[in-house]
Parts: sequence; structure tokens; C-alpha cells
Amino acid sequence: MKEPMNYTMLCDFYELTMGNGYFQSGYREQICYFDVFYRSVPDDGGFAIAVGLEQVIQYIESLRFDAEDMDYLRQKQCFDESFLAYLHTFRFSGDIWAVPEGTPIFPGEPFLTVRAPAIEAQLIETFVLLTLNHQSLIATKANRIVRAAEGRPISEFGSRRAQGADGAVLGARASYIAGCAGTACTLADQLHGAPAGGTMAHAWVQMFPDEYTAFETYCKLYPNNATLLVDTYNVLNSGVPNAIRAFQTVLQPQGIQSCAIRLDSGDLAYLSRKARAMLDQAGLTECKIVASNSLDEYIIRDLLLQGAAIDSFGVGERLITSKSEPVFGGVYKLAAVEDKNGVITPKIKVSENASKITNPHFKKVYRIFSNGTGKAIADLITLHDEVIDPTQPLHLFDPDATWKRKTVTNYTARSLLAPIFKDGRRVYTSPSIKEMRAYCGQQIALLWDEVKRFENPHTYYVDLSQALWDVKQGLLKANG
Amino acid sequence: MKEPMNYTMLCDFYELTMGNGYFQSGYREQICYFDVFYRSVPDDGGFAIAVGLEQVIQYIESLRFDAEDMDYLRQKQCFDESFLAYLHTFRFSGDIWAVPEGTPIFPGEPFLTVRAPAIEAQLIETFVLLTLNHQSLIATKANRIVRAAEGRPISEFGSRRAQGADGAVLGARASYIAGCAGTACTLADQLHGAPAGGTMAHAWVQMFPDEYTAFETYCKLYPNNATLLVDTYNVLNSGVPNAIRAFQTVLQPQGIQSCAIRLDSGDLAYLSRKARAMLDQAGLTECKIVASNSLDEYIIRDLLLQGAAIDSFGVGERLITSKSEPVFGGVYKLAAVEDKNGVITPKIKVSENASKITNPHFKKVYRIFSNGTGKAIADLITLHDEVIDPTQPLHLFDPDATWKRKTVTNYTARSLLAPIFKDGRRVYTSPSIKEMRAYCGQQIALLWDEVKRFENPHTYYVDLSQALWDVKQGLLKANG
Repeated sequence: MKEPMNYTMLCDFYELTMGNGYFQSGYREQICYFDVFYRSVPDDGGFAIAVGLEQVIQYIESLRFDAEDMDYLRQKQCFDESFLAYLHTFRFSGDIWAVPEGTPIFPGEPFLTVRAPAIEAQLIETFVLLTLNHQSLIATKANRIVRAAEGRPISEFGSRRAQGADGAVLGARASYIAGCAGTACTLADQLHGAPAGGTMAHAWVQMFPDEYTAFETYCKLYPNNATLLVDTYNVLNSGVPNAIRAFQTVLQPQGIQSCAIRLDSGDLAYLSRKARAMLDQAGLTECKIVASNSLDEYIIRDLLLQGAAIDSFGVGERLITSKSEPVFGGVYKLAAVEDKNGVITPKIKVSENASKITNPHFKKVYRIFSNGTGKAIADLITLHDEVIDPTQPLHLFDPDATWKRKTVTNYTARSLLAPIFKDGRRVYTSPSIKEMRAYCGQQIALLWDEVKRFENPHTYYVDLSQALWDVKQGLLKANG
Repeated sequence: MKEPMNYTMLCDFYELTMGNGYFQSGYREQICYFDVFYRSVPDDGGFAIAVGLEQVIQYIESLRFDAEDMDYLRQKQCFDESFLAYLHTFRFSGDIWAVPEGTPIFPGEPFLTVRAPAIEAQLIETFVLLTLNHQSLIATKANRIVRAAEGRPISEFGSRRAQGADGAVLGARASYIAGCAGTACTLADQLHGAPAGGTMAHAWVQMFPDEYTAFETYCKLYPNNATLLVDTYNVLNSGVPNAIRAFQTVLQPQGIQSCAIRLDSGDLAYLSRKARAMLDQAGLTECKIVASNSLDEYIIRDLLLQGAAIDSFGVGERLITSKSEPVFGGVYKLAAVEDKNGVITPKIKVSENASKITNPHFKKVYRIFSNGTGKAIADLITLHDEVIDPTQPLHLFDPDATWKRKTVTNYTARSLLAPIFKDGRRVYTSPSIKEMRAYCGQQIALLWDEVKRFENPHTYYVDLSQALWDVKQGLLKANG
């Protein structure tokens, strides 16, 4: 069994120095609420996709400091022995709520909330952020590429250019949830069920005495899955003619129609049209054309606009690193503290940068759907104990321009944050990766096209309830 | 003991289908040479830094398919049982040469070469590339940031925005080798010896009844390492005055001069100068000012040009993801095959994209240093059995513009590629991470400043020996 690493020590060192400080200054039992949210959509898109919860769950469940960790921490000579003794039996005892993997999310709304004693809530900050930030980034990018291909399958090909092993494996997982058809990464299939496939590298073609022999050998070995890489020498003068000959020699006598060629360099629009004509003329109308070579959503859209005869795409480095915007800026911010009587005091972070002001308090997020169109109208962030009565009209207003108001009737309000941990115990059953992928597609289909376009998408409304807005304004005045 | 994952299955699926193909078509024993090299320097810089070899070594040493892997591969129904039996006892049996970690490298030159039977050499492609690509990328970026700070320490802060756990941990490792002073990542310290440190988050300040109490508490806990985050409410009206009061109340009576404040938002140039004046006026001339908030080499250079009073920098997302250019395009290309009599046949990959043409044959790389200045003049790629006699003049010429010629005398030629594995056995002792960091700094000091500038750096010469150039031209003509 491949055990994932124990990532308890994958924390910023200050989580530990602060933890030691809370422990020693009477804040050990202090219950806190932290929200994970993000501030702007990568690539100026209209939405992001939350992915990575499964790895958060595994992390939380395996949180513990082993003897080696204790030795390491002790030799740093900045932690009290009583705190080290506490860490030695440390387990997560709090509550976590989160949106299911594959949910479209918008700036400013919590997509994971932690309620836990200060030390615990602080300790998990780094890993929770890094895994949600990473996989949400890649899922958001992958879905853009999937949408650009307009139904043509996208295979994730980028392991070799990923930022580390997890970048490759979990990036492939996130890409699949976000709509990719599969991956080249074998371990992502074995561990996470993202289907792996692949064909040949240039080295295969170079290994044989000539290109035709390389192709013929491959077709004999894999008659039902023969995708031949045709650009090792010259696509139109050598690669495509040799592929046609190999298909005709090996596959046609077996009655196999299904096959493919892959273009990995040169002018893909031109070469694909020329290759298509050559294949059709040879009667290989079922032969697919796969293209790769530094593709992304813009190049794919452009290739299709130029009439490229491409049936599917392999996408590497620009997907697996989200090259155009390689950072997902999810943050982890204190929203409230709770005293021993269960009284919750909201907290706010003001900032010299206005965009960094947080939404205080323990909150819920509702997505409001029109019953007429079925589409999502807006998200509404409320206090944790507010209830939306769908038989009553809902009054929405822009939190930054409060005169912009709208009354919604005939709607459905769906609460997005599901309970994941309760008192340190997992209470959530994860769907299969295939179910996540289907859910992701369904949820994106409920967004208006205006939110999904690449250039200047419509800004989806994320509103605050009147009660939450009042709390926020009150805190801003008190801290102003 | 924290065992790294076994990454044998972290390969592109085509490595396995090709392996099965080589196995079944008589290429099982075929000895091949593959080179790892890159084509262009990230951020249009003058050089990159090779890092990641230690993880390649660990990977090669732990290569094996376990029972679970065999089950997985069998159910894919595309591998012959004889190949699966071969994989079951698979070990790496080949040779590897590589440049030591921290070596500056230039486009087109091999920085790792593999000599192994085809299946083995092919299987390791994905992991070797991904780990060298990732760490070389981050090292190259980190070194730019270190150079921009002109001697002021850089701390790597980016775990939470890294692309996965390895992105954080090995990114911190690479940053340290490339010259960062330390990291916030605890696990990078524990596993790899990159020194971890850290102070406080905004949540610490918010947890206490007021900012002063938060600061005072922290100074009491960590009197010898008190860095106070002063931007939770208002830097100049509240943060700096409260920090001064806490330093004066807690530290000064103990005779402690050393302390710091951290700015994490707002106009860092302005705020740092104002804060400096306030600290100096309070007699806290030894108090350092640390700055963070989406920094990179350009912003740091600009801050220093503006006279910012900043003593050290914390750098997060733009370092740990190499945000400006998040892909290091190292490739793995067949360079030669060797027959049973040891005769090596060079191989070349031509391409519709001229920049993708490879350098054929089993090769060596020499760095040529002037004995007068001590500086590096050029790198020279030769055939594997060429010897440079430093008592003889060396004739260099530009491989793309062969009329540009230069004769070098009074030079030292240093071979860059060290033997790492011989017949599957490790023959290389890795230096400590501190030694790698020192070596990296020394080697960069041997480059001319013109190669190191950020804008339009001088293109360092990577030349081919006459013998290698002749082999390449011959193959190009034969394949043209």
C-alpha cells in the first residue's frame, strides 16, 4: 500500500511558535473560526473550482507528531517542554465545513471553515491552504482548457514539467475532476483513479532502423490503441505516409478502423488539415488526429477557429503549472472566537490594502438558483444561524454598492458548506472521483455563459446578508 | 523515519507501453544514451542553476515495482506477462553522470546523461525530468531574488501557495541551495536542512484583546527572536508605536537590542522609511525591518532604488512557484545507441521547429576558465572521448555562426559531469546542503556580471568541439 507522507511537519514554523505562545498565555482552549477564501479568479476568469478536500481530510486524519518530530522540535530550543508534551499527544479535535470537490467558487466566500482550539486551527493553516490552493488552481485552469476544446477530449500530459511529484499526481487528479478525459501520469491513475493512457515518444521512433519499422512494430503490439507520433523526421513527407502504410499493413487486415496520429510540433492548424486530407484519401476516415505542443485554452480556441482538423488535445506544461497564472491566492483568516459559554465574537482584519479586509463571523454560504431557468443567480453569505425561507422574497444587495438592490422570488437556496469533521471525527463520505467529475460538470452547467467566457466575464454576485453586513460595518467603525 | 514515497509508478504511461514494446521487439538489451538539457533560460536570464540531483539519486535507488503495482499493471490488459515478470525484478543497472547541485548551467548542454538499456532509460524519464525541472526552476528564480537584494537576507515564505507538498518542501530546499537565508517551511528544515524560522501571523495579533498585549506577550515568550507584525490595524498609528512600547517594556530591561518589525502590506518604501525614523527616534537603532507582500526580484530592486529602509525580505508565492515563468523546460532526448561491441552510434532528432534539433552522441561538457581573471569564458561540449590539453591553445567557434572564432590560451578546462551511478550502483557522495549552497555561490561568482544582469544578459557561449560539430552536421545531412 502506498502510504501518503505524514505532513504534520509541513507547516510554517510560525504556526509552532504561535502555538507555543497560545499554549503558554492562556489561549490553549480558545475556540477560533478560520475561513479559507480567495480574492481574485486566476486568468481574470469568472469563477474557480474548489478541489483538494480529499487530501485535506487525509492530512487531518493522520495529524500526529512522532518521536523524530519531537526530537527535531526540542533541538530548536524555543518550545516549552509542556507544549512539547501537548504536541506529543496532539490530535485534531475541531470541526470543518467545506464545499464538495468540483464546486464552482467565487471570490470572498468561504469554501472551507475551521472551528477548533487556537493551536489546532493555526497548525493546519499551511497544509490546508497549500493543497486547496494547488488543486483548485489546476482544476480552474484545466476546466478553461476543456471548455475551449468544445467537447474534444483533453489529456493531461504535463508530469515532467510539474512543480514536484505532488504537482504531477494531484495536478492530474484535479484536471480529471475538472473535466479532462485522462492523464499520462500512471501514479495518478493508480492512486486516484484518473485514467492513464499514452502512446510513444520520439525516442521510440529513433530507436528503430527507420520510421516505418517503428510504426509497424507499434501497430503490431497495440493494434487496438495505435497512436503514432508522426513528427520525428518530417510530418507530411515521412510521418503521415509511414503511418498510413503501417495502418494499412497491420490494422486493416484485422478489420481495425480505430487508430490515430499525433502531431507534436510545427504549424498544427496547417499540418492537421493536410494530414486529414492524406488520411481520408487513404480511406482512413476513422483515424483521429491528436495534437500537442505547448497548448492552452487560447491556442486551442485559435486552432479551432482556423479550422484545424484536430480530434483531441494533449496538454502539458501550461495546464500542470497553470502557466499563465501559477498561483491561487487562497487565504486562511480568523473570522471569530468563541468563549466557554458558546458566545461567538466576530473578528475582522482591516488592512492598508482595502481588498484585504475580511468578512467577519461564523458564516454560511448559499447559492441561489432561479426556479425558472435553473441557473445560479448569486451567492449569499449569511451569519451561521440565519435561515433562508424560500417561500419569502429574498432581498439581495451589492455589499460594496448597497444602493444596487434586487428582490428574488421563485428561487432555491442551496447551502454550499457541508460538514466534514465534527469534534475531530470525519463525518463526510467522499464521492468517487468519477462522481466528483460529473458533479463539477453539472454545477458549471448551472452558471450563465456570461460568467464562463474568457474575456471580461460577468462578475457573479457574492452578496452579504443584511445581518452579516451590519456586523461587518460595526467592526469596521470600531477599528477605523 | 519519514520515508519518501516510492515514485516508480510516477511515470508517463507511455514509458511502460514503450518498455513493453522494446521488451517484445528485441530491444531489451539495447544500450541507449539520453541527455537532459534545457533550451532557454527562465525570465530571459543569463543562466540557470541545476538542482534536484539528490532526489534523482533517491528515486533511482528505490526503483522497484511492488505487488500492488503489478496488479495495477496487469488489469490494464496491455502488457505481456513476460514483461510484467521482468518488471517484477526490475532494478536500474545503468550509468548516470550529472553536474553537482548548484552548478550554473546554460541552454543546450547536457546536465545529466543516462546510459542504460532502453527500457530502464525510458522508464526514468518522467521522474528525472520533473524533479530536475522543478528544483532547477525554483533555484534559478530564488537566486535572481537573492541577487536583487544585494546582500540582504531572503527568507522563503511560500509554502501555502506552492504547487503541492513537494513544491513547498523541495522548493524550499532549492531556494536555500540557491542562496536564500532560510525558509518558513518546517519540514524542509527537518528533512533537508534548510533552516526554518518564523514569527507571527495576523491571527496572533487578532487573538489578543489589543495589539499591544499581543506584542508584549510575544516579546516575553521570545525575547531573543521578537519580530512583530505591525500591519494588522494601522502601521504608523498603531503597529509601530505598540511595537516600540513592547520592545522598550520587555526587551530593553533585559538589555536585548536585537529585534525586528515586519511590514506585510501597504507602501513598503514609504512605511519602512517612516518606521525606521520612529524606531531610531526611540533609540531602537538595532531593530531590523522585514518586508513581505508579493515580492520578487523586480519589486525588491525597485524598493531599494527608492531608498526603502528594509533589512531583509520574506518572499512567498512569486518565488515558490517562479510565478513570472513557472516552467523549466528541461527535456530528455536520445543521443546515441551502443551495440554489443561497444560501438556507439549517434542519434539526432530533427524537427519542424529548428530550435528542437538535438546534439547527438555521448558527450562531455567542459567549462573553460581564464587563468588571468578566473572567470568562466565558455562551455565546450565535446565527444565523450575527447581530451582537452590545457597546454595547447583552444579553438572555439559559435556552432550557429561558425565564422565567429576565438583562440583561448592560459585557461583551465573543468569537466562538469560527475559520475553518479555506475552499473546501477551509486558512486557519488553528495555534499551537505550547506556545501551545495556555498558551491553555488562560488560558481556564480565565477560568471561575468554581464551574464548575471536581469535585462538583456550577455549570451554565454556554449560551443561544440569540431569533432562533435562534424558528427551533428553529418547526421543533419543524412536526415535532411
